[in-house]
Amino acid sequence: MEKPTIPKGTRDFGPTQMAKRQYILENIKKVFQKYGFQPLETPAMENLSTLTGKYGEEGDQLLFKVLNSGDFLKEVDAINLSKKDSRLVTTTISEKGLRYDLTVPFARYVVMNRGEITFPFKRYQIQPVWRADRPQKGRYREFYQCDADVVGTDSLICEAEIVLMIKEVFKALGIGDYSIKINHRSILSGLAELCGAKENESSLFIGIDKLDKIGEEKVREELKSRGFEENSLNTVFEILNFKGTTQQKIDFLTSKFSTSEKGKKGVADFKEVLSLLKSYGVTEDHIEFDIALARGLSYYTGCIFEVKINKVAIGSVSGGGRYDNLTGNFGMPDVSGVGISFGVDRLYDAMEELQLFPKEAQISSTVMIAHLDEDTMRYGLKVAHKLRQNGIATEIYPDQSKLKKQLDYANKKLIPFVIVIGSDEMKDGLLTFKNMEKGEQEKLSLTSIISKIKGQ
Amino acid sequence: MEKPTIPKGTRDFGPTQMAKRQYILENIKKVFQKYGFQPLETPAMENLSTLTGKYGEEGDQLLFKVLNSGDFLKEVDAINLSKKDSRLVTTTISEKGLRYDLTVPFARYVVMNRGEITFPFKRYQIQPVWRADRPQKGRYREFYQCDADVVGTDSLICEAEIVLMIKEVFKALGIGDYSIKINHRSILSGLAELCGAKENESSLFIGIDKLDKIGEEKVREELKSRGFEENSLNTVFEILNFKGTTQQKIDFLTSKFSTSEKGKKGVADFKEVLSLLKSYGVTEDHIEFDIALARGLSYYTGCIFEVKINKVAIGSVSGGGRYDNLTGNFGMPDVSGVGISFGVDRLYDAMEELQLFPKEAQISSTVMIAHLDEDTMRYGLKVAHKLRQNGIATEIYPDQSKLKKQLDYANKKLIPFVIVIGSDEMKDGLLTFKNMEKGEQEKLSLTSIISKIKGQ
Repeated sequence: MEKPTIPKGTRDFGPTQMAKRQYILENIKKVFQKYGFQPLETPAMENLSTLTGKYGEEGDQLLFKVLNSGDFLKEVDAINLSKKDSRLVTTTISEKGLRYDLTVPFARYVVMNRGEITFPFKRYQIQPVWRADRPQKGRYREFYQCDADVVGTDSLICEAEIVLMIKEVFKALGIGDYSIKINHRSILSGLAELCGAKENESSLFIGIDKLDKIGEEKVREELKSRGFEENSLNTVFEILNFKGTTQQKIDFLTSKFSTSEKGKKGVADFKEVLSLLKSYGVTEDHIEFDIALARGLSYYTGCIFEVKINKVAIGSVSGGGRYDNLTGNFGMPDVSGVGISFGVDRLYDAMEELQLFPKEAQISSTVMIAHLDEDTMRYGLKVAHKLRQNGIATEIYPDQSKLKKQLDYANKKLIPFVIVIGSDEMKDGLLTFKNMEKGEQEKLSLTSIISKIKGQ
Repeated sequence: MEKPTIPKGTRDFGPTQMAKRQYILENIKKVFQKYGFQPLETPAMENLSTLTGKYGEEGDQLLFKVLNSGDFLKEVDAINLSKKDSRLVTTTISEKGLRYDLTVPFARYVVMNRGEITFPFKRYQIQPVWRADRPQKGRYREFYQCDADVVGTDSLICEAEIVLMIKEVFKALGIGDYSIKINHRSILSGLAELCGAKENESSLFIGIDKLDKIGEEKVREELKSRGFEENSLNTVFEILNFKGTTQQKIDFLTSKFSTSEKGKKGVADFKEVLSLLKSYGVTEDHIEFDIALARGLSYYTGCIFEVKINKVAIGSVSGGGRYDNLTGNFGMPDVSGVGISFGVDRLYDAMEELQLFPKEAQISSTVMIAHLDEDTMRYGLKVAHKLRQNGIATEIYPDQSKLKKQLDYANKKLIPFVIVIGSDEMKDGLLTFKNMEKGEQEKLSLTSIISKIKGQ
């Protein structure tokens, strides 16, 4: 019999990984909820008509398509079949696909439920998405997204609260050294205006987006090949390369954008977000005004965010921004919103590298009960029940095995305490209480054990 | 533009439903963890070779199959294509399917990771599954399963702890009137032996499984048509119809099974489970020894369970049992295990009907801050920040709107408290604190408001 496998690019999450992933997700969820976001879940399968055309041509290719049930070939055009034209045949044998992100299903939900939703609508959503990408290190075909969005308001309070939420999440996870890079799409548009590329914005943005990866020289080459002139590019890079404090950057841009309405608007919005943060009583720690931040996705129209953990060689662990037309594709124009997404896999890897997972995120039960024979095992059942009644996660070793085997089990499962019950313990009610980490043991009554564990 | 829809048989879960679903799942999870079960997640897609042949022919038909990426028709046999033979073509254009349940992926996981797993392995798993069933009331194409299993031990302590977990889950959810029906597959085998149907067990079990739905008459007819004789059936129904206390049922079966080893083993196991429960110090409340309980799934070999909520016209809300050969299909024989599964959708419906969801499971933020102009809004930001620092879920209305609109928003979102900030409030620091449910308001300092909310 062949050894079973799982599809490439997918993963099982065993108990240890799950405990750590839950630790990350629970902390993020708590922050979302504290800021008034409510949960939403959408189905894994969406109609292909909902998904197709939303992620560009490349995205369409990466959608996982679900075969229609039953005799799916019946209605297929015989000529397309005989030509083996996969593309044309697909549209008739598959009507559904797996969601590619959480944004499009969210937009679809908002449009379908616009009558019942109370706007501004603050939702968070934590679910897997699927992409038929070529699997490689850190890139999976199934992975979780963890998004929070507010739609139905253009208030910059939402941007400010996204910054607050990011700060709270990182504080909760114990990550101290990180940067929240902020920019504004209108600042980039102002830049395009300055270099006479108003009509060719997106080429410029795509170029800027690559700066991090391929460097200035190559971006210049690429933009030149797309028709940008040398002195336009000099203007662009003079601005992108400007170094200084946030205030210096603001002043510099203000002088540069004296004739660009878009540019002015971008700077004004950014200043307002900083001013709001001040009103909350929050410092500008971790905030970095990054004029060269572009973010690939084309639908952003306002502030954009990206979070990087310093001293860890991993890309951004969180990103987001404001969009003005999320639901336009589904016939509901002019819905402005702003969102943030946390990358669970990258946060996980970074926290592993920085050894930030607390021990509590890794243990399973708090206590295991070991026993030496039928009688002590039965006595142990009552002890287990008492511990659980006191809210203590407890397991009793289910088989009658050698004590060593029972203790090995507790060790492997990282169970911190073991209660050993022998005939002496049954007689005098003083149980052997082992601290597995310290390798110490003492004899205690069950009541003392309970208060000892709870008092920790 | 067409109004977007979702695939039939699938659902969105909006904030209100999600809050209630999370309430159910969090309570179940807490109990699983208290009993030493650890989380596992497996990918949504499995290789079709893993899934096919595990759920019977009907089940194979109900698998959602995922189309291979790229030019999937390239390798397909031209003759099968021209014949439009959907079945034969499927195997070449689709290698992956969506998981149909959590049991087969769990078995696959155990086999793939046998080297690293610490046995007995106690895992819980809460994830959606997909079935291409005809959608109807209460039957969906995507739904959550919520399973806990122990594998690698045949200790009846596991069965006893399943009963304890069921009791704790129902207590946590506030469901008081329910029955845990227990039977044993060997008791049913004993029954088959008694009526000379040793070789024809499964027909008998399938018949008994339908008793609930179609009644004795029709089951008799069906079994007759499958070759069972009148007096065999009389023997069967004499036993199935026996009424009495648990002890009377045990005594009755003991006398009937004097010559059936299987029957004796079933009764002995059941007695042992009761005896273990007694050792825990737990009563037999809610436990019903139901000799006619069969459960459809063929892989059960030991104790079987089913939980029904009384006075609610809904099927069983939980079920499970022991199996002796979970991983045999994947080349790892003789792994005994026992599991329990909770039906989230049915629990949800039952709890709605019984009005058991607490109000706390339905609210979103605890406080909303309303404001009257730019200045009071900015003052409100600081107030929001203080409340959140005290762990209180807070939102500030993000736009400058009429007070009525702001209060309407709070009402629709079931936010229990609103703080209104006007210029007076800003001056003297006494904030208007509205209890939205009682329709009362008073002027309080922020410190008093915080202790009032926390003291609740």
